[in-house]
Amino acid sequence: MKTINIALLGFGTVGQGVWHLINTNTNQIKEAHDIEFKITKILVPSLDKDRGVKEAEEFFTTEFSDIENDKSIDIVVELIGKADQTLDYMKRSLKAGKHLVSANKHIIARHGLELYKLADEQNKMIRFEASVCGAIPIVNLVTESLSANQINKVMGIMNGTSNFILSKMDKEALAYEDVLKEAQELGYAEADPTDDVKGFDAANKIAILASLAFNSYFDINKVLVKGIDEITKDDFAKANKEDCTIKLIAGAEKTDSGVAISVKPCFVKKDHPLASVNDAFNAVFLDTNCAGDINIMGRGAGSLPTASAVVGDLIDIALKPDFKPDYSLLNRVSGSVKQVDMSKVAVKDFDVIG
Amino acid sequence: MKTINIALLGFGTVGQGVWHLINTNTNQIKEAHDIEFKITKILVPSLDKDRGVKEAEEFFTTEFSDIENDKSIDIVVELIGKADQTLDYMKRSLKAGKHLVSANKHIIARHGLELYKLADEQNKMIRFEASVCGAIPIVNLVTESLSANQINKVMGIMNGTSNFILSKMDKEALAYEDVLKEAQELGYAEADPTDDVKGFDAANKIAILASLAFNSYFDINKVLVKGIDEITKDDFAKANKEDCTIKLIAGAEKTDSGVAISVKPCFVKKDHPLASVNDAFNAVFLDTNCAGDINIMGRGAGSLPTASAVVGDLIDIALKPDFKPDYSLLNRVSGSVKQVDMSKVAVKDFDVIG
Repeated sequence: MKTINIALLGFGTVGQGVWHLINTNTNQIKEAHDIEFKITKILVPSLDKDRGVKEAEEFFTTEFSDIENDKSIDIVVELIGKADQTLDYMKRSLKAGKHLVSANKHIIARHGLELYKLADEQNKMIRFEASVCGAIPIVNLVTESLSANQINKVMGIMNGTSNFILSKMDKEALAYEDVLKEAQELGYAEADPTDDVKGFDAANKIAILASLAFNSYFDINKVLVKGIDEITKDDFAKANKEDCTIKLIAGAEKTDSGVAISVKPCFVKKDHPLASVNDAFNAVFLDTNCAGDINIMGRGAGSLPTASAVVGDLIDIALKPDFKPDYSLLNRVSGSVKQVDMSKVAVKDFDVIG
Repeated sequence: MKTINIALLGFGTVGQGVWHLINTNTNQIKEAHDIEFKITKILVPSLDKDRGVKEAEEFFTTEFSDIENDKSIDIVVELIGKADQTLDYMKRSLKAGKHLVSANKHIIARHGLELYKLADEQNKMIRFEASVCGAIPIVNLVTESLSANQINKVMGIMNGTSNFILSKMDKEALAYEDVLKEAQELGYAEADPTDDVKGFDAANKIAILASLAFNSYFDINKVLVKGIDEITKDDFAKANKEDCTIKLIAGAEKTDSGVAISVKPCFVKKDHPLASVNDAFNAVFLDTNCAGDINIMGRGAGSLPTASAVVGDLIDIALKPDFKPDYSLLNRVSGSVKQVDMSKVAVKDFDVIG
């Protein structure tokens, strides 16, 4: 049995999910892989807040250096989010000789390249399955299982909050503002919903996926981003008349002038499989040159679903003989496929899918 | 760049697919993984048949011992099918120090355990993604990406031929015999369709998946197997009245008395995602304790889709540092979850899904 020591940076929704998953599924992980994970340090911003998990408290520290200097820690799991110091902690973890797992789409989409480079230099692994579509192992599909294929197109519903809002607007013929308010009360939308409803969250995810799918590093600032906050009841009436619903679609596609990456609301025909992806679910469709079309659907967020992706990455790293990296993400994205600058493209009408 | 030498056993539909995929996607595989695959030997039953791929002929041999004794071959890919000597070739490949990739659901479902044991003894890897649902990387999802989860249930449409027939019977209100005949003429069904329409093919697949999902080795002879060859137009009329269609569902589920594995036609509500899996597509639904529900859909058969799974396995093996196995399938299936003997269960009525 291999025992792997883990440090968590952050102990919010996902951090607690990882804690609970590792405890609940200890036997499954032992049986399947002869591995045991031990969370031995947890970075929290302060020790006085009650985080509701008594047994975890003995591992709390407020000092990142406690983790950085702990030679027994094999893998650092970054679950802090957008804070100023996050990138610094990620780099210092790799420099301290730890493998890195992150759920941070914002940072991977912007600083992936320097992190992949650093991981290579340190001969360490970096994984971020949880940063794209929660429980759906789409990063793994693209980088491993389906990587014998040339990918023509990646497309999907990658933001649960906006999908929840759109589903409800359609089903109950409600206005955007009313549904947003309800979603906030139910906890499906944050107090500041900007990232979700304006498409920025989905843009991070599709930028990360596109880069892996087309073996080249793309600029998040060239992605077309249009959210759902201007969708009206009239738009839905028009969509329904054409036997469509409206979905926020993130897509990346090879064109003659390069890879075009976009996030925008589209009409989706009601008999298209994307139309039936409702509420907080996510779905990703891949168009590949040999496997053909592959569609995968699952929970795009939430404590345990996201933890499933994090612990999947932990297993992936832990299984590598002598912790030796099996492939280089830097090599993976070092192709020279051009990117179309979509940032100035004005979206006038709804594309129709299906 | 790593160069990996491959031998193919068999050069039928899938073997030729692997040949074409490796040639077409050479650059993709190089770019993504810095790997080059070379097919250096191909076992064929005779040299005089024209197999339509001129450039491959120089690698043809009729003697398995040519492959067995060739020290330069890293991985043997078994694509022969059910023939008498297949298992022997698979074992001898492992004993000769080669890693083994197979698309052979019939043999993995029956002789998996002895093959996993032999692979362990030889410190070699065995992979069989292509044996279950063609292009869908479901073996990888269960054994790797989602393996942090306890799986409660695996269910899906795992036979394209019978799904093609059922889809057409429903859409065009035709009788089984008429559609079968057309499917045979179109090449969607074989001259002897027994394995597909009687459920045996799907039974092999669900037995393999169940064993991986529940970490225990199960007996294919205890699987309930009922095919689609007795489905009538009346059955469809009844299904439609209940707003259902009919699908051949393969499933494995934890019950109080053990894991119950079955293949049988079921009513599926028309708004359930399985109802919209049409024609030759396959789909697998996983119910897991942390990731929640994960659904994946794709081509379940065909030359290039199946080749995508084979080459995915080749990449997986080729990437392992120093070819060291990262996990043991023997360990994986050595749990002691009981299996319910379903072989004598009489199917009286259609279960309803959704």
